[in-house]
Amino acid sequence: MIANGYYSQDVHGPYELHDIGNLELEEGGTIRGCKLAYATFGELNGAKDNAVLIPTWYSGTNKIIEQVFIGEGRALDPGKYFIVVVNQIGNGLSTSPHNTPAPAGMANFPHVRIGDDVRAQHKLLTEKFGLESLALVVGGSMGAQQTYEWAVRHPDMVKRAAPIAGTARNTLHDFLFTETLVDAITSDPGFNKGFYTSPEDVRAGLLRHAKMWAVMGWSTEFFQENRHKALGFSSLDDFVVNFMFAYFGVMDPNDLLCMAWKWQRGDVSRHTGGDLRAALGRIKAKTFVMPMSSDMFFPPADCQAEWRLIPDAEFRPIETIDGHLALFGADPGAIRQIDKNLGELLAARVPAGPL
Amino acid sequence: MIANGYYSQDVHGPYELHDIGNLELEEGGTIRGCKLAYATFGELNGAKDNAVLIPTWYSGTNKIIEQVFIGEGRALDPGKYFIVVVNQIGNGLSTSPHNTPAPAGMANFPHVRIGDDVRAQHKLLTEKFGLESLALVVGGSMGAQQTYEWAVRHPDMVKRAAPIAGTARNTLHDFLFTETLVDAITSDPGFNKGFYTSPEDVRAGLLRHAKMWAVMGWSTEFFQENRHKALGFSSLDDFVVNFMFAYFGVMDPNDLLCMAWKWQRGDVSRHTGGDLRAALGRIKAKTFVMPMSSDMFFPPADCQAEWRLIPDAEFRPIETIDGHLALFGADPGAIRQIDKNLGELLAARVPAGPL
Repeated sequence: MIANGYYSQDVHGPYELHDIGNLELEEGGTIRGCKLAYATFGELNGAKDNAVLIPTWYSGTNKIIEQVFIGEGRALDPGKYFIVVVNQIGNGLSTSPHNTPAPAGMANFPHVRIGDDVRAQHKLLTEKFGLESLALVVGGSMGAQQTYEWAVRHPDMVKRAAPIAGTARNTLHDFLFTETLVDAITSDPGFNKGFYTSPEDVRAGLLRHAKMWAVMGWSTEFFQENRHKALGFSSLDDFVVNFMFAYFGVMDPNDLLCMAWKWQRGDVSRHTGGDLRAALGRIKAKTFVMPMSSDMFFPPADCQAEWRLIPDAEFRPIETIDGHLALFGADPGAIRQIDKNLGELLAARVPAGPL
Repeated sequence: MIANGYYSQDVHGPYELHDIGNLELEEGGTIRGCKLAYATFGELNGAKDNAVLIPTWYSGTNKIIEQVFIGEGRALDPGKYFIVVVNQIGNGLSTSPHNTPAPAGMANFPHVRIGDDVRAQHKLLTEKFGLESLALVVGGSMGAQQTYEWAVRHPDMVKRAAPIAGTARNTLHDFLFTETLVDAITSDPGFNKGFYTSPEDVRAGLLRHAKMWAVMGWSTEFFQENRHKALGFSSLDDFVVNFMFAYFGVMDPNDLLCMAWKWQRGDVSRHTGGDLRAALGRIKAKTFVMPMSSDMFFPPADCQAEWRLIPDAEFRPIETIDGHLALFGADPGAIRQIDKNLGELLAARVPAGPL
């Protein structure tokens, strides 16, 4: 375990912790007493058919999800829906390398897959809340990976799905990009094979990681049109240090690496012997596929190719120059489009299913 | 100086060396006895109006330029044109950090700008060959940066210009991408602030640099369509190690950094107090602007925005999924398009100018 004040109720709360017991992982390891951190908004109705699940993205927690997606009068309105935001394993709030006691923590933390997260979340939702149906699963980036995994793994339970800026099976190109992020951190001598004394020992690696996010996360148009200045930064350097590094530099390196390993290997076709068409063909949810138009590593074409394989799906790209990081919510136009799409998706009638 | 058998006549020859004397640099340093390595193809005609200049890109030498662009029956046919390929300063064949004696070499090598290269090349072409006119200047990537610099700096001398996959003023986004390449090298402890004993001390940094090129240099479609396998590599790893790292890993780190610094700061608007419209408005050359359609760091939109500012220019994007590295010539379709465009450009009538 390693102290890190960033992962706290002060910064990300309020959130609850639920112990789902031991979680045996697809890769063979076990997380003992796996705790999921989650936040809920709104009330579950009597029919238990108004639940919405939102899993988190790389580096994200329930807090940014709340800020970006949830609000009165919005599509995800706590007045209408019971919204559960679940922090993914390894994100620093749920069980993660940095908050797991030795010897299982830090670089000894076992490899986790997207499927492990979905099994853990299923346990939380069924055991804790008695849910048998989800009106919607929606998530961005790694949250989209989890959304696809949910829709393929539990086709009768997931009524609607909205994968935003993410794919069902990661591409080689995206795998390689993520590998360069991993390299940025692990190549720092202060990383010490994952057994650093303090995250600050890995400051240089985290800065490189932040810069690479600045390159691939936004877009050339973002900088050409001085969006970074509009966000309150006086120069490229100022933006890289005081926005990108300020954001990522406080996080735990092993936590980021745990998520990166998982991200690289997101693949619903593991359920069907590598046959992506068969896997996506299982989805019964009405699905809106929503890439960001300027996304450099989950680009629209990759998302569109998957959309064609989903039985009841619409392709709804979000027009923005904020690239992948339009997920941060800084482009109000992108948020409006997402809200509009989610509103239409939630209004759409879906088959009753087994309930 | 540091021994490196890669930069040799065996690998890149035949090429000649020409000493242009001392080169005082825009940033204030001086290269003493600056030598330009160049290769020529074909013969200069009596009217001296059939000369074509091709400057090199980041990491490139006269050899790859010859392989990709020059040949009998092609647009750049040595039977018709006198073609001069000049290696940029810092590329390892011309004066560079690794071949400059102490104390001026290695990390003490002064900062060089695109404008310095063009002044040095102008000296070579006028002093050595007595050229007063260039039928065409054509180059890819940093070669495009030099092409733009030539066309703005010597508007009467350059009759035609073909900047391929490059811009006249580098974008913030591209600057930042290049910065991450620089970081990959300089963060290797073996780099030792530029005073390594052997390039192999920087192996890990060069491998990271190669991986980042693999991400930004090609495209997601390139990997989706298994172009790396078509090129003879069995997997992503095989491609990264035995193509990308095999290519970059033999180069001198300080040489790469010299070029990267120059690349980051390419900007013809330095001639006009930052006014890009005024700078590009000076161009008298008939110009074909040729971005690669899938280029991730000199993307078509950035090139198109500059094209609009050039008086007599056509926008001729090259359709390819090989991204920026279609410059390597592995996509025959891209090469066919480039050849066709260059053929049309060379056939176009241009104003007689002062000659």
